[in-house]
Amino acid sequence: MISNNNSSCSQQTKFNLVQVKGTWIRQSDQFQLAEGKLSDAKIYENKSEHGVSWTVVSPVVFTYRVIQCKNILDPTNDTLLWGHLGEEELKHTLSNCKPPKRFVVIDENVNKLYGSQVSQYFKARGVVYKILPLPTTEENKCMELVTKILEEVHEFGIDRRSEPIVAIGGGVCLDVVGLAASLYRRRTPYIRVPTTLLSYIDASVGAKTGVNFAGGKNKLGSYVPPVAAFLDCSFFQTLPPRQISNGMAEMLKELTQCCADRYGMCSSAGMALMKHRGLFELMETEGRKLLHTKLQVCKTRPEQEDSATAIIRIAIETMLEELAPNLWEDDLDRLVDFGHLISPELEMRILPALLHGEAVNIDMSFMVYVAVQKGLLTVDEKNRIIQCMLSLELPVWHQDCTLELVQKSLKERLKHSAGSLRMPLPTGLGTAEIFHGMIGDGILCQAHKKWTDELSSSGDK
Amino acid sequence: MISNNNSSCSQQTKFNLVQVKGTWIRQSDQFQLAEGKLSDAKIYENKSEHGVSWTVVSPVVFTYRVIQCKNILDPTNDTLLWGHLGEEELKHTLSNCKPPKRFVVIDENVNKLYGSQVSQYFKARGVVYKILPLPTTEENKCMELVTKILEEVHEFGIDRRSEPIVAIGGGVCLDVVGLAASLYRRRTPYIRVPTTLLSYIDASVGAKTGVNFAGGKNKLGSYVPPVAAFLDCSFFQTLPPRQISNGMAEMLKELTQCCADRYGMCSSAGMALMKHRGLFELMETEGRKLLHTKLQVCKTRPEQEDSATAIIRIAIETMLEELAPNLWEDDLDRLVDFGHLISPELEMRILPALLHGEAVNIDMSFMVYVAVQKGLLTVDEKNRIIQCMLSLELPVWHQDCTLELVQKSLKERLKHSAGSLRMPLPTGLGTAEIFHGMIGDGILCQAHKKWTDELSSSGDK
Ligand SMILES: NC(=O)c1ccc[n+]([C@@H]2O[C@H](COP(=O)([O-])OP(=O)(O)OC[C@H]3O[C@@H](n4cnc5c(N)ncnc54)[C@H](O)[C@@H]3O)[C@@H](O)[C@H]2O)c1
Ligand SMILES: NC(=O)c1ccc[n+]([C@@H]2O[C@H](COP(=O)([O-])OP(=O)(O)OC[C@H]3O[C@@H](n4cnc5c(N)ncnc54)[C@H](O)[C@@H]3O)[C@@H](O)[C@H]2O)c1
Repeated sequence: MISNNNSSCSQQTKFNLVQVKGTWIRQSDQFQLAEGKLSDAKIYENKSEHGVSWTVVSPVVFTYRVIQCKNILDPTNDTLLWGHLGEEELKHTLSNCKPPKRFVVIDENVNKLYGSQVSQYFKARGVVYKILPLPTTEENKCMELVTKILEEVHEFGIDRRSEPIVAIGGGVCLDVVGLAASLYRRRTPYIRVPTTLLSYIDASVGAKTGVNFAGGKNKLGSYVPPVAAFLDCSFFQTLPPRQISNGMAEMLKELTQCCADRYGMCSSAGMALMKHRGLFELMETEGRKLLHTKLQVCKTRPEQEDSATAIIRIAIETMLEELAPNLWEDDLDRLVDFGHLISPELEMRILPALLHGEAVNIDMSFMVYVAVQKGLLTVDEKNRIIQCMLSLELPVWHQDCTLELVQKSLKERLKHSAGSLRMPLPTGLGTAEIFHGMIGDGILCQAHKKWTDELSSSGDK
Repeated sequence: MISNNNSSCSQQTKFNLVQVKGTWIRQSDQFQLAEGKLSDAKIYENKSEHGVSWTVVSPVVFTYRVIQCKNILDPTNDTLLWGHLGEEELKHTLSNCKPPKRFVVIDENVNKLYGSQVSQYFKARGVVYKILPLPTTEENKCMELVTKILEEVHEFGIDRRSEPIVAIGGGVCLDVVGLAASLYRRRTPYIRVPTTLLSYIDASVGAKTGVNFAGGKNKLGSYVPPVAAFLDCSFFQTLPPRQISNGMAEMLKELTQCCADRYGMCSSAGMALMKHRGLFELMETEGRKLLHTKLQVCKTRPEQEDSATAIIRIAIETMLEELAPNLWEDDLDRLVDFGHLISPELEMRILPALLHGEAVNIDMSFMVYVAVQKGLLTVDEKNRIIQCMLSLELPVWHQDCTLELVQKSLKERLKHSAGSLRMPLPTGLGTAEIFHGMIGDGILCQAHKKWTDELSSSGDK
């Protein structure tokens, strides 16, 4: 006996919600009595002999800004202080005579490099502020750090409506502060200012927050977007080269995936594949230069600005396209990304030997060999892709990425995807396509052998 | 210089998001190239000489069920195990051969009374389960309890998609488990089974979760609704009378407020005020009986079922109406409820002397005197309302609710409401209306004096 479901003998009424004199009242779909603003929320009432039940359908709209800008710490630049507000909100806020208040959490290393500039910015703008430098490393990425932030925020005191918490640092800092802000008074606005390439193109623009728990990566967290993310490339200047390469791997993934996504559309819409091929070639020819100039504008060679800007813009645009329609990841299928099939296993197994982007790159490199084995990619294309990765100073092979680990990861994924594994594989230079179903053990084994034969000495030089 | 706002010289493009071959791509509003499912999300791109910015507008739809049922712990009743699923989802789930798994958190006192029934239910249904009894009291309502739950959930292991965590207990238990579930893997489904009257009509049907922090009530939390709330009145049988009265106070508030909400609509839509007056009279005549029968169905006097059922149904329906269009409380105005202007100050000041509903009732009782002083209510109406409260064995006065406390609370509220205090005041028997602006000190003072003169000895009998 199923007493709670919409069985045929039960009677269902759909209610709209209408706002009358500031208050919401329900109105049956058939009898519209009062006039007023209509909510997108609905209530379905079911009556049967077993009792009453209601189904509530309630959309919550999240709005946030992502702003690319220069000189964010220059006191004449409004962005850091007011960039999260629209023109009208800003007028309203400025009409308030109270000085603004900001609570800032900053990565300890970033603080050493930029802390005094941050202080000067807020001082120059007449802001009542507190800067909390924290050792936001992967090892410390846990609930204790969140609690520490909450205690300090609480003591400092901020207005839940109008005084966002500001996070300045890499992905760890942004994730931890995001979680603290989403918990404080059930949601306090916060702002993300990424200072690594990886967090710039990934952690900064989405809704995810998180900390590690019980040995699991990002096991606790929330989906609460910042009110704004402010993106300034100039922070990259002080990044160690390995951190730039790390971010470049995520960009390679994004670029390839963005092409996978567009593959169908491009042909159906008659657009040239050229554009995407062009992107891969940009990475191939310019990647190494971008790496060494840390994606900075080169005054004497202004054309470099364009390749850096173009690549970053496309990465951000792609992220936003993926995020906006699926902010809470209700569509779990989307979670399987190119380069993310084997890399989580590998990353956790040998942490902290590999950075996240490095593990992703090893995963992608292996998948390139799988694609050749499946006849999706020519040997020449494979060579160019691997060469591009190497020129970005990324690892393309790892001894701990054994055939067993590959098989285990894929089987694990299959178990969680209700029988239909969604696997993006490269199909050309900077393009990929989604394949469903499992790869045969024969292909996996041959691809792994060839991959090891050809690349196991790649890190030796 | 405002470099980030949509100034007139900047150029804005609106993008829709279209799903093509399983992937979302953005399409300018003007040039529709590909065909596919359209998302409700939008991306606005702004370009100006200062750089690029994007505004992401992304609606996330929350869907949850509220089911009133009987005998929820009877193994022949499907609700506890499958009530959160629709018919189609249930078919899909039942086709899976794995036995279902449930992690259950239960209030320690509730466990003593119902624990063995809960075990028997899951045993009889072939469920792999773990029951975790916890001392979910107001004093323990903190992050440590959340962590304890998370550790146990993690060790037990559940499927994030299909195995909801079940919370059985009062409001504290539901709030703490809700927070744990909303954090675990960024969101794990959970189910609320309220066992107190207060949590049945309030905590069970909304999205709010929370714990106390740094001496503040519910300072940390989230807005993540349960997948379902299962409401069974029979738990009330074992509640101490004071807990029933406590819940009745919240109902009085709801009923009065629901009428406030409908006041405008009623006249404009030509509906009779009768209905609402009828509700107050139901409380007046039946309230005491409902209290003493603990809102249970009386077999020999079946008409009692109707008053209990009616009152509870209206309270739930009103809660749902208020919640559905404002699930994340984006509309902060709605937060000021009848009975909630002075009570938070009072409650925190003398915790744990007063239960939440008791503090709310003292607040409402005082507001009744304010309404008389303002000429909104007759002396006869006032007497009937106070009499009704007394018959529900609720405190109507408290020595710590001094004039100073009243004035301080109102000023505090005024500060946070941008100059326009929204104050619900009773305007008749079981009706109220929203007034804007501050009450004069003269009226407050006179009302407080009369209130104290008449009611200070009310608790003495
Ligand atoms: N929320 C999301 O959507 C999302 C997406 C991707 C990654 N992440 C998370 O991000 C984290 C990785 O981020 P990350 O790669 O930025 O690591 P990170 O935050 O650990 O930063 C890397 C290192 O660079 C240093 N650093 C940061 N900025 C610097 C600068 N401008 N100059 C010099 N040194 C600087 C830091 O002190 C740190 O030592 C992971 O925990 C991952 O889970 C989150
Ligand atoms: N999330 C929300 O929207 C929301 C709304 C209102 C209140 N709340 C929260 O709810 C809490 C108050 O809830 P509450 O009044 O249920 O308090 P509670 O959870 O402390 O329960 C009250 C007492 O009753 C006992 N009890 C529970 N069920 C029983 C039963 N069937 N028989 C015998 N004893 C039983 C409990 O052990 C406890 O001692 C507050 O912390 C408040 O913040 C939350």
